[in-house]
Amino acid sequence: MKASGVEWIVEAFGCEPARLADRFALEALFQRCIDELDLKPMQPPQWQVFPAPGGVTGLLLLAESHLTIHTFPKTGFAALNLYCSRPRPAWPFADRLREHLLATRVDVRELARGLP
Amino acid sequence: MKASGVEWIVEAFGCEPARLADRFALEALFQRCIDELDLKPMQPPQWQVFPAPGGVTGLLLLAESHLTIHTFPKTGFAALNLYCSRPRPAWPFADRLREHLLATRVDVRELARGLP
Repeated sequence: MKASGVEWIVEAFGCEPARLADRFALEALFQRCIDELDLKPMQPPQWQVFPAPGGVTGLLLLAESHLTIHTFPKTGFAALNLYCSRPRPAWPFADRLREHLLATRVDVRELARGLP
Repeated sequence: MKASGVEWIVEAFGCEPARLADRFALEALFQRCIDELDLKPMQPPQWQVFPAPGGVTGLLLLAESHLTIHTFPKTGFAALNLYCSRPRPAWPFADRLREHLLATRVDVRELARGLP
């Protein structure tokens, strides 16, 4: 059985709450990821801003699979997923999440998909 | 630090290729999941049917977080994610994926999100 790609499951802690509630800050993060990994969006992203103290959700359908984010301003937490069904270098998630969201800690799990 | 939900990472092997290429079969699977877990879609789902031998991608933005699927008809594989930021019982993924996609093997990983 051949693997069908890799999914990065990323937890960003200690983020600036105002950034987590700001859809445009999150759009900039998505665009940075798209540009630096040369990803191919197939449809416009979907964004949902929940009433305060809720956060923001973003989903992006890619030729490579998907990019998603869910933010929790109250706890300073953001949950990011990037699934690439084709080989792709790892993105510097920690550096980028520190820069864009002011995260103080970033944990990354890399899961193989499609392996029994 | 409080957990911010659970993500189920589900691999379905040995699926019927015709079902994996059939957007409507996958929509029925999503609807079953929505109905049985009482999920709240916030926007219409996005579906992308890739040219054969490619598969289908589906993304659904939920009040609870997200539901996604990517299918690979050539290898009989489907990758499903369900992220629920609020407590939710586990769905019977194996039974449902056997029924809807004729999967012969289903592996489920349950990941806590938001825990350092």
